[in-house]
Amino acid sequence: MIVIKLSGKLFENITLIYEYINIIKKYVDKGAIVVGGGETARRYIDYAKRLGANNYFLDVIGIEASRLNAWVVVAGLGEDAYPKPAETLAEALAASASRKYVVLGGLQPGQSTSTVAALVAEALNARVLINCAGIDAVYEEDPRSNPSAKKYDEVKAADLLAILRSRALPGTYELADIWSLEILRRSKIPMYIVDGRNPKLLEGVLLGRAKPGTVVVPE
Amino acid sequence: MIVIKLSGKLFENITLIYEYINIIKKYVDKGAIVVGGGETARRYIDYAKRLGANNYFLDVIGIEASRLNAWVVVAGLGEDAYPKPAETLAEALAASASRKYVVLGGLQPGQSTSTVAALVAEALNARVLINCAGIDAVYEEDPRSNPSAKKYDEVKAADLLAILRSRALPGTYELADIWSLEILRRSKIPMYIVDGRNPKLLEGVLLGRAKPGTVVVPE
Amino acid sequence: MIVIKLSGKLFENITLIYEYINIIKKYVDKGAIVVGGGETARRYIDYAKRLGANNYFLDVIGIEASRLNAWVVVAGLGEDAYPKPAETLAEALAASASRKYVVLGGLQPGQSTSTVAALVAEALNARVLINCAGIDAVYEEDPRSNPSAKKYDEVKAADLLAILRSRALPGTYELADIWSLEILRRSKIPMYIVDGRNPKLLEGVLLGRAKPGTVVVPE
Amino acid sequence: MIVIKLSGKLFENITLIYEYINIIKKYVDKGAIVVGGGETARRYIDYAKRLGANNYFLDVIGIEASRLNAWVVVAGLGEDAYPKPAETLAEALAASASRKYVVLGGLQPGQSTSTVAALVAEALNARVLINCAGIDAVYEEDPRSNPSAKKYDEVKAADLLAILRSRALPGTYELADIWSLEILRRSKIPMYIVDGRNPKLLEGVLLGRAKPGTVVVPE
Amino acid sequence: MIVIKLSGKLFENITLIYEYINIIKKYVDKGAIVVGGGETARRYIDYAKRLGANNYFLDVIGIEASRLNAWVVVAGLGEDAYPKPAETLAEALAASASRKYVVLGGLQPGQSTSTVAALVAEALNARVLINCAGIDAVYEEDPRSNPSAKKYDEVKAADLLAILRSRALPGTYELADIWSLEILRRSKIPMYIVDGRNPKLLEGVLLGRAKPGTVVVPE
Amino acid sequence: MIVIKLSGKLFENITLIYEYINIIKKYVDKGAIVVGGGETARRYIDYAKRLGANNYFLDVIGIEASRLNAWVVVAGLGEDAYPKPAETLAEALAASASRKYVVLGGLQPGQSTSTVAALVAEALNARVLINCAGIDAVYEEDPRSNPSAKKYDEVKAADLLAILRSRALPGTYELADIWSLEILRRSKIPMYIVDGRNPKLLEGVLLGRAKPGTVVVPE
Repeated sequence: MIVIKLSGKLFENITLIYEYINIIKKYVDKGAIVVGGGETARRYIDYAKRLGANNYFLDVIGIEASRLNAWVVVAGLGEDAYPKPAETLAEALAASASRKYVVLGGLQPGQSTSTVAALVAEALNARVLINCAGIDAVYEEDPRSNPSAKKYDEVKAADLLAILRSRALPGTYELADIWSLEILRRSKIPMYIVDGRNPKLLEGVLLGRAKPGTVVVPE
Repeated sequence: MIVIKLSGKLFENITLIYEYINIIKKYVDKGAIVVGGGETARRYIDYAKRLGANNYFLDVIGIEASRLNAWVVVAGLGEDAYPKPAETLAEALAASASRKYVVLGGLQPGQSTSTVAALVAEALNARVLINCAGIDAVYEEDPRSNPSAKKYDEVKAADLLAILRSRALPGTYELADIWSLEILRRSKIPMYIVDGRNPKLLEGVLLGRAKPGTVVVPE
Repeated sequence: MIVIKLSGKLFENITLIYEYINIIKKYVDKGAIVVGGGETARRYIDYAKRLGANNYFLDVIGIEASRLNAWVVVAGLGEDAYPKPAETLAEALAASASRKYVVLGGLQPGQSTSTVAALVAEALNARVLINCAGIDAVYEEDPRSNPSAKKYDEVKAADLLAILRSRALPGTYELADIWSLEILRRSKIPMYIVDGRNPKLLEGVLLGRAKPGTVVVPE
Repeated sequence: MIVIKLSGKLFENITLIYEYINIIKKYVDKGAIVVGGGETARRYIDYAKRLGANNYFLDVIGIEASRLNAWVVVAGLGEDAYPKPAETLAEALAASASRKYVVLGGLQPGQSTSTVAALVAEALNARVLINCAGIDAVYEEDPRSNPSAKKYDEVKAADLLAILRSRALPGTYELADIWSLEILRRSKIPMYIVDGRNPKLLEGVLLGRAKPGTVVVPE
Repeated sequence: MIVIKLSGKLFENITLIYEYINIIKKYVDKGAIVVGGGETARRYIDYAKRLGANNYFLDVIGIEASRLNAWVVVAGLGEDAYPKPAETLAEALAASASRKYVVLGGLQPGQSTSTVAALVAEALNARVLINCAGIDAVYEEDPRSNPSAKKYDEVKAADLLAILRSRALPGTYELADIWSLEILRRSKIPMYIVDGRNPKLLEGVLLGRAKPGTVVVPE
Repeated sequence: MIVIKLSGKLFENITLIYEYINIIKKYVDKGAIVVGGGETARRYIDYAKRLGANNYFLDVIGIEASRLNAWVVVAGLGEDAYPKPAETLAEALAASASRKYVVLGGLQPGQSTSTVAALVAEALNARVLINCAGIDAVYEEDPRSNPSAKKYDEVKAADLLAILRSRALPGTYELADIWSLEILRRSKIPMYIVDGRNPKLLEGVLLGRAKPGTVVVPE
């Protein structure tokens, strides 16, 4: 059992999703897929903000947008998927009994889809969480301002926590937040960061032919 | 009790929705609001098509997109609304007991949001369905090809049915389909067509100061 | 995967249902069964009318009566069936993952059980919908008034639509309505009309030994 | 808050139900109505037996039949009722917050609708359960075989329990069973037996102008 | 398919539960486990009583406490169990389709977990209900006051009913009540009374190496 | 609208809960009450750990234990409360429309009941969250090791965050965690820390006669 997180950004290029679905059907025997809300979430949250909505509703709307992305993955997987995005961890767990792929978007206000991915990995006793992200790896500094910034092949969750707190590098919030890292640590689940913009990388990692951009060690 | 249908097209201009929410809060005592899926629905249905999804999933994705629009209306209404889009007629009916506005998107595959609006109007014993549409009225011919086409101030549902079947004027499918008209007829609920692009028209109609573009008489 | 529609009329003779259950257990590997409301629906709708109920409630009561018939089929199939009538398409889809028969009555007001059968066939990617009806085939004219009326071995859904609209032959409304035919067409699912009063015909059709009364070609 | 039990037998004469609905609307401020399955339950249970169903399914089918009767009452009460039969005590309790009438059929296999009525009365802190039954009162002996049998104006629940156990008079099982009496006793709720075939008697009892056939004292 | 009842008392010694889980995983192919509320139920019911709660809430709190015990069993069974306590018979039935163990606590006010166990056994067509109780067998008299009281190797349900009514021996109420015995009788399901304080006895009975303390014959 | 958090510790002394219920009924017009799991949670989590349960199940069991405490509060409030603990924010929001008190325990794995209280306060647009805690205030150092430690009358959420991260004073985790503080900050909701062991303090704060132990300012 593995859990794959697909960044909401990837849904801006539906061809990527098409490739991910094919790779999952081909190489993943049993697993859950958690998707972010991306551009649709941002747009609808902006709409609701302009209407004066409170933070509860802004978060719910972001969750609903991520579920719309999740529906696209369910529809693409067709008969191989549990036929709707799971809306609670309990539903994901019950659905996984059918040996079908289970797809989720967000679950609850005040919580990122990274955290959802970690909670699902924990609930399903997954051996790894593969995060197909909007960036290729964890860096010591922002690689856009310092092109020679050191890339981490491996980083301890505790150290990534410190990095996240102190520097808030662009793109890293979406990669992982404090809560998701604490869950991975307590349940000893490693997270692989893989550049989501290139689906071939997931294929490589699944087949053991490629190494993740960064391995987040659950310590 | 009245039911207001907001065309999904209107969500391309969130300022319109802002105005509708203010008008509803000000002039509507108790009612349901049914919203279409618009551009988001079209985009996501296109995504799913490219992934090979069947018609069930295409319709479900359209429904989910309309619910995302419905969430925006719920969030904008805040404490005056039942706090989520109703997902069945039974839920809409139970929710309306709380004297809050009830918001809905689509309900079921194979069914337009026009039909949903008619079913909700029927279930709630609404006295009228006001359709804030992407066009201003029903015409005898397409007003874009024939600018002097006759506009109907009033049309019988049975006659509109015949027009829909024979001519399929652009924009009219979204206005009403066969099922929605049959439901309005059997329950004797008139439908007012109002140009949704100008929220002031809804205000005028609610206050009895303006006439709808077309009144569809349930005969 | 096939979908079998059992006319509500058949429940007036429970021996027929007994035979259908045996045939389904013996020859159908995986499928859904959709049942109509029949006499019980008519009686209860009449009760509710006399109490002044609106059309929403009349339709819901018809649905509940069809679900009572569906419970009888579930009870008769026993451990081979998903243990309750599915109440939404999503539930039917999730239930079909268990490789048990899924049984449904009606789903929503304003919708016939013929339409439910078409929607279920579409959602489950069924290859055919077999309609065990209260009549044996589609005729050009009412066979009761003109005993030499031409029987169609095959009819295009589009042509059947035209027949339904223009003539409204007795018994044909229950056979198919506009909505169900449009769904079958868009998803290219043929419908076999089989005389429901003789269960041996279903057995023959399932074994390829008999031809349906009429094949409705999804064009 | 009061709870009214309507015997399933009364649904054989829909005019009686019509009168009950009018009386309830007129004289009952807030309450729950529990209905039995009657003839429809008996017929469908017989169908399922002939198909070899187990006792779980026989009971469920009886419950579903009683819910069909409950839908008729909901439809007849219209906007004054919670818009569907409550299917659990928790739903009944939540629904009663809306100050609408709550209607129930059966709840669970292995349980009579008399027991449901007692449980609902207990959950809603009802001051009395009025049982509009298929007989007019509790008798010492079967009044059909001994026309001079003593009629009880008042009977202790404990004594009625003993009567039920020892004699099993016709019609009395439906009136009350062991479980319903134990619940009424533990929560100190009296039950009035009123002849359900004459709705005027309920009106009289509600207005304090008539005495129940028998008062079952919760001791 | 078998149903195992674990007395709530056993949860005072979690080592016993650990042993039961191992025995079930090792020797039971497919089954349901029903657990009582025990000490936690008693404590919380006492809390609620001191706050003036009515009997509905007292019973619900007992049910919730038994579900907490059920969660412990679910958590201990891990991936071999349906991932939550079933809260209705319908859920238990649907869950059993996945070939996982199904765990339940109480279901409804006014009903013991013994009755739940009998209802589950009936719904799942179980061949036997094994009651791992707080006592070792059914006795003619209370073995604590009369150490030479006769132990029944076998007792008819009808006779046990009579014993329960007349003597109310300590510990026997929890063993079985009238309702549970009537359900076992009508569905012809035997109940084995096994001393729950010694899990080895269950192992022996499952392997056919030991005899139950008492066999309750469903007559 | 206010939200009151009751520490799970308080349930070890049911008299405290009795007093809280009376104070809430007397002085709180409309509000939500969130309760922790306390000793029962700790005990059951320990049971599940000994059975080898994973962190998902440990957290769920803690949530279920907090819901058992929540049921006690619901039962004590009786007809003034929504009749069950809300299990999602959406349910809490819908329930609050009925103008009854809404009670919650935990909601989701990986989340404290402090975070639940903050999320509920945000969703319900509460003006304040009153935390009836196991300690009386926030201190600069642990008052048990340094009896002259400075007590904060007021502390910014951002500063409390820093204190929580650096020192982890005993009892403070239960008081607030990172997520609860971030939610209070983003929605500008102040939190009052009140010594939960003395219910009179809540009464004083509600009446404006007493000052909270510490006010956590949402900055």
